[in-house]
Amino acid sequence: MADSALFTDFYELTMAQGYWKRGSNDTAVFDMFFRRNPFGSGYSVFAGLAPLLEALENFRFSPEDLRWLSGLGVFEKGFLDFLADFRFTGDLYAMDEGTIVFPNEPLIRVHAPVIEAIIIEGMLLNIVNFQSLIATKSARVWLASNRGKVLEFGLRRAQGRDGAMSASRAAYIGGASGTSNALAGMRYGIPVMGTMAHSWIMGFPSEEAAFDAYAELYPDRSVFLIDTYDTLQSGIRSAIASGRRLAKKGKGFGVRLDSGDIQYLSTRVREELDRAGFTDATITVSNELTEEIIESLVLNRAPIDWWGVGTHLVTGGNEASFTGVYKLAARPDGKGGLEPAMKLSDNPDKTTNPGVKQVWRLYQDDGSFKADVLSLEDETIGTDSERRFYHPSVDHMSFSFRPGRAEPLLKKRVQEGCVCPGCAARDTPENLAEIRTRVREGLERLDKTYRRLLNPHLYKVALTADLRKIKRDFLKIYEK
Amino acid sequence: MADSALFTDFYELTMAQGYWKRGSNDTAVFDMFFRRNPFGSGYSVFAGLAPLLEALENFRFSPEDLRWLSGLGVFEKGFLDFLADFRFTGDLYAMDEGTIVFPNEPLIRVHAPVIEAIIIEGMLLNIVNFQSLIATKSARVWLASNRGKVLEFGLRRAQGRDGAMSASRAAYIGGASGTSNALAGMRYGIPVMGTMAHSWIMGFPSEEAAFDAYAELYPDRSVFLIDTYDTLQSGIRSAIASGRRLAKKGKGFGVRLDSGDIQYLSTRVREELDRAGFTDATITVSNELTEEIIESLVLNRAPIDWWGVGTHLVTGGNEASFTGVYKLAARPDGKGGLEPAMKLSDNPDKTTNPGVKQVWRLYQDDGSFKADVLSLEDETIGTDSERRFYHPSVDHMSFSFRPGRAEPLLKKRVQEGCVCPGCAARDTPENLAEIRTRVREGLERLDKTYRRLLNPHLYKVALTADLRKIKRDFLKIYEK
Repeated sequence: MADSALFTDFYELTMAQGYWKRGSNDTAVFDMFFRRNPFGSGYSVFAGLAPLLEALENFRFSPEDLRWLSGLGVFEKGFLDFLADFRFTGDLYAMDEGTIVFPNEPLIRVHAPVIEAIIIEGMLLNIVNFQSLIATKSARVWLASNRGKVLEFGLRRAQGRDGAMSASRAAYIGGASGTSNALAGMRYGIPVMGTMAHSWIMGFPSEEAAFDAYAELYPDRSVFLIDTYDTLQSGIRSAIASGRRLAKKGKGFGVRLDSGDIQYLSTRVREELDRAGFTDATITVSNELTEEIIESLVLNRAPIDWWGVGTHLVTGGNEASFTGVYKLAARPDGKGGLEPAMKLSDNPDKTTNPGVKQVWRLYQDDGSFKADVLSLEDETIGTDSERRFYHPSVDHMSFSFRPGRAEPLLKKRVQEGCVCPGCAARDTPENLAEIRTRVREGLERLDKTYRRLLNPHLYKVALTADLRKIKRDFLKIYEK
Repeated sequence: MADSALFTDFYELTMAQGYWKRGSNDTAVFDMFFRRNPFGSGYSVFAGLAPLLEALENFRFSPEDLRWLSGLGVFEKGFLDFLADFRFTGDLYAMDEGTIVFPNEPLIRVHAPVIEAIIIEGMLLNIVNFQSLIATKSARVWLASNRGKVLEFGLRRAQGRDGAMSASRAAYIGGASGTSNALAGMRYGIPVMGTMAHSWIMGFPSEEAAFDAYAELYPDRSVFLIDTYDTLQSGIRSAIASGRRLAKKGKGFGVRLDSGDIQYLSTRVREELDRAGFTDATITVSNELTEEIIESLVLNRAPIDWWGVGTHLVTGGNEASFTGVYKLAARPDGKGGLEPAMKLSDNPDKTTNPGVKQVWRLYQDDGSFKADVLSLEDETIGTDSERRFYHPSVDHMSFSFRPGRAEPLLKKRVQEGCVCPGCAARDTPENLAEIRTRVREGLERLDKTYRRLLNPHLYKVALTADLRKIKRDFLKIYEK
């Protein structure tokens, strides 16, 4: 059931039967793009590609699935027989996982018989939307911590099992140093970490006895949780007492704060530790941390070494979904080719960019990102001369630029249903580490005005003249 | 891997090895409770019990899991051998799934050898937190719609695969009439529903041709999506034209709005439909709906028949996690029995209620809920006389009451690791429908002042005198 192609919206299946009965299953092109950066961010991080490719290869209807569909009384036997042989046979283009991305540019482009293209929609969006949301959140948290040490802690507050597993993966890609989720550690090769729970301490006659017992068991990894009773009156004193015994064995220790005012307590605890001579003892904090709280603590010089972030990192917190959509960009022209398609809608910002498109990243001479440009697939953007690029909807806005480098971001990942050689279809530790490095390099090439947590600068995503012409021609048709 | 006991926080395993090495694995008692209703709600809905019981029965370490643990260099061979035989052998008490619940009352109570009790913590919270969040959201959405017809639409915006599957289940429990998620339809027996996508319309030369084609295929289930180009200038006109042809066959139809101002457009579309004689044609709306938007539309008499709710229903929207925690309530007393345990912390609202407890629901004579009371497990609350109950933390607050009925809410569901006869360990359509009925009956017994979306009345959760005494004795120990 894990890869059942029933993991789709029901209307895809009724529409699919419609295409099948009409004999119209020629190749169409769909774009996956998003409309708005989450969290008020100036950028997003594209994630979920490797799991998507894996799911795509295995997306099938089982005999049980087909029996259930048959029982609904909506589908003909011929169509169900067709679904029995269903597999994705199209091509898929995508950006590298871990690319820094911006609204309205295709992250993925699918060329497939229309029935295949629509049945995969929900699965594709489900995987990419969630992982991109969390990778983006993680990058924000990591930057807010001043590129510090972030531990993803969210299993118990995540949205279901895969909400935890995929979040651990995406949080690591985005910048976290490790996870508390042991299964994610095994499955994805992410470093697993953790300290101790309040219940450990409550199970002993005293806090100090609990710390001593732990230190005896794990002399090389003792991080004492000091807020079970009272951080300053009891916790830090017990930790220092146990720490003195560890010091006699040549071992260090750390403490964790999980409640109270983190700025005040971390400062006071640091003073106590330093006064006792434990200048190397680390301080870990947790308790509903967000990137905004972390930035505030960092700017106010709270002496914190490790950030344990759970709820907000694995769910997105106050913004729990990524606005990714999957829209028809070109349809069969009835002559074996394609023609551009466009949606208008009653919300102007839901108007799409028509046609088969490439996304180009234009770099400044110093290697930083200048702007992204959508072109038609067969256009090339060179570095030899200045060229004008246009705002996607505002007529009078444009800019002229000669890029130091122009990089096409969409690359073929799947050809005729088979994952291309060299494209990761399985998660391996190597892949995740590479993806994480790509995120960090991308963030460095992004001017800090776009990285600002609050009210960031707006990154340009423009159109070439040729693409703009196609879009304007469409709009004229629908003008009253 | 689906039920791997590695789906746990790593620190549980290091602590577990600690208990194992110390030979201290006597039975302890843990409470699962939550600290705050989500969404500013006056109540929550407990959900996820059946999936939890199923996961609990199958929670095991595989040879692969143990090999991975072994490779970390943290665990001894003897402990890994112990984990190889790991299964949950304790007792579990829980409320009925679908019970209306309130902060600080145990929803689940676990009696188990401490190692088992801690290893299941993350899995238990992961399942119950998420499903309770979504069932609560769904109840709010359903009440806001004036007990109307809500369609859960969220697969593509959900937090991963299980984020979608569990959300479909919990949304149905909470009040939704159906889901778009075909796999959830099969797995849980939830009615599956859907209309058509913009891409269907964009694939035809005209909107009317697209509607006609659909109507020919599905004359009994035509709901035309009318906002692809322009709702009032084009969409509704095309729908009425196609609807007239359907009417000749004696068939009805509906329309769906997915953008623009829903209040204005639904009113204008209703007028157009009525003027054309289609007073039975239904209007479905979607587009980032929340319970607040729905309530506003209902109060302003927007003529809407079906509510398609996606993102906010399956993720919680601006609040994406439930504040459920799992805390030690009683620890081994070293003589084969139990003694109460309590956590204070630096946040007063993180102070726990000690001891092995029962939760009682007190009813008014008219059958409505009066208040909930936490008692010690061996106390009984009768209906024969008035009794005084106490605020859990504010000393001078109490109330006196003789209940019309007093119902103990925690019931044994698992005995020595085996799901009790009569307790659902598997999801079946019957169970979900029963759970859904329980939610609806509970909401009717809850005064409407608690059901208010914004700023609801605060429901009382009080302590018996005996439980209060134990708590106060603990607090005295830690007073300075």
